[in-house]
Amino acid sequence: MNQAFNQTGRYEQLLDIVKGRMTSRQFDPDYVVPAEHYDMLLEAARHAPSGANAQPWHYIVVTDPATKKKIADYFVDEQRHRAKLKMKFPTPNYRGLETAPGMIVIVADFRYTRAFPVLGDGSALDRQYQENAERILLQSVAASTMSAHLAAAALGYGVWWVTAIGQESAQREMKPLLGVPEDLDIIDIFCFGPPAKPPYKRWKKTLAQIASRERFDMKNYQTPEDIERWIQETRHKVMYRDESKID
Amino acid sequence: MNQAFNQTGRYEQLLDIVKGRMTSRQFDPDYVVPAEHYDMLLEAARHAPSGANAQPWHYIVVTDPATKKKIADYFVDEQRHRAKLKMKFPTPNYRGLETAPGMIVIVADFRYTRAFPVLGDGSALDRQYQENAERILLQSVAASTMSAHLAAAALGYGVWWVTAIGQESAQREMKPLLGVPEDLDIIDIFCFGPPAKPPYKRWKKTLAQIASRERFDMKNYQTPEDIERWIQETRHKVMYRDESKID
Repeated sequence: MNQAFNQTGRYEQLLDIVKGRMTSRQFDPDYVVPAEHYDMLLEAARHAPSGANAQPWHYIVVTDPATKKKIADYFVDEQRHRAKLKMKFPTPNYRGLETAPGMIVIVADFRYTRAFPVLGDGSALDRQYQENAERILLQSVAASTMSAHLAAAALGYGVWWVTAIGQESAQREMKPLLGVPEDLDIIDIFCFGPPAKPPYKRWKKTLAQIASRERFDMKNYQTPEDIERWIQETRHKVMYRDESKID
Repeated sequence: MNQAFNQTGRYEQLLDIVKGRMTSRQFDPDYVVPAEHYDMLLEAARHAPSGANAQPWHYIVVTDPATKKKIADYFVDEQRHRAKLKMKFPTPNYRGLETAPGMIVIVADFRYTRAFPVLGDGSALDRQYQENAERILLQSVAASTMSAHLAAAALGYGVWWVTAIGQESAQREMKPLLGVPEDLDIIDIFCFGPPAKPPYKRWKKTLAQIASRERFDMKNYQTPEDIERWIQETRHKVMYRDESKID
């Protein structure tokens, strides 16, 4: 075996970090993130791949407690709103945002979809290419964000990837707060810090459940009924409980 | 400083891998990927975070040369089609897919958007939540894919993240080839192997160009004209040339 392409020591170091990345939604409120840690996280984010190498991402480091509180307030309000709409989503306690020692707001520049394969003529085919282009852009920003999360996990922090803020109301509330220009989009908030409670590993599918050889293995296919049942019976357990406690 | 949250050794190991992840689009055609490497890559993918912990991803390991050739053929045809449409996108040479030693096709199950915060009532507000949900799903799959790419880079491989296959024609061609059910989506192809030519580090924005403190730093804002100019004058250089050779 060619050892240049079998650097298992490096692989094991990575896997240790990947497996050790754990979500926390409540952090030690008194911990202060050393200033250099923000740069270290964004240095990892910076080297991610992106469609057309456009790097369509911006990161806003938020340390001001008043800003954090306003962001937490928005999410708590949104949570109440969802409850009123009877959304039935097992929402986390967004109050944890307020005291997160580390907070980085992630901004995407969707105008860079123009740099990807698109026609720009408004045709039906162009709409398919446009949708593709949006996917490429989101995947690029997610790859960059994931690198930053892994960097935080490597340092020893718990992490929280807060999504679901594409609604107009979220953008209307948060863009002025953070001085984000109208033509950019806030897409995620990344919180990190020492977990307030011991973090736990969540349930993961087995390798056999996600892998196929040569052709898609139909034993891994889920029917619409399987998915519905998963949402009703399993989702709330695998979102918040320890892997060892799933009954 | 609390050393439990300042594990710089682990961080440096990660950063070395993150910075060393380099794109190759042509690989050593004679190299055979050891069987255990596929599992090692997917083991990293398996532990990624996902919205509602739904893990809406499937990975198909392709080793059959006939399948690889058909996939390469599709992309080369698509490339010709784009040229005819005068798309002006500096497309890579997709022939490299045919002889990629490692190939993993990535499949997303968009039906899991139902497990994210949505209303499902077809209202205008629901459409916003649905769009959000698709974003969450794509970001989840990208986080998982990125973990696999980093695992390949850790082992020493060059990697290629092939996107832009959402068009109906791509799905129509490739789903039967890979036995992917109609209600799932092929979203990416991940190639890896020993690079045929020495890989090179591509241009990356500086930390100052992507980072702001407290509020978005308008010096990093690009006008529509800046973006247009970047597409015309810079894109083709930063996609394919060495960082040191950008003129």
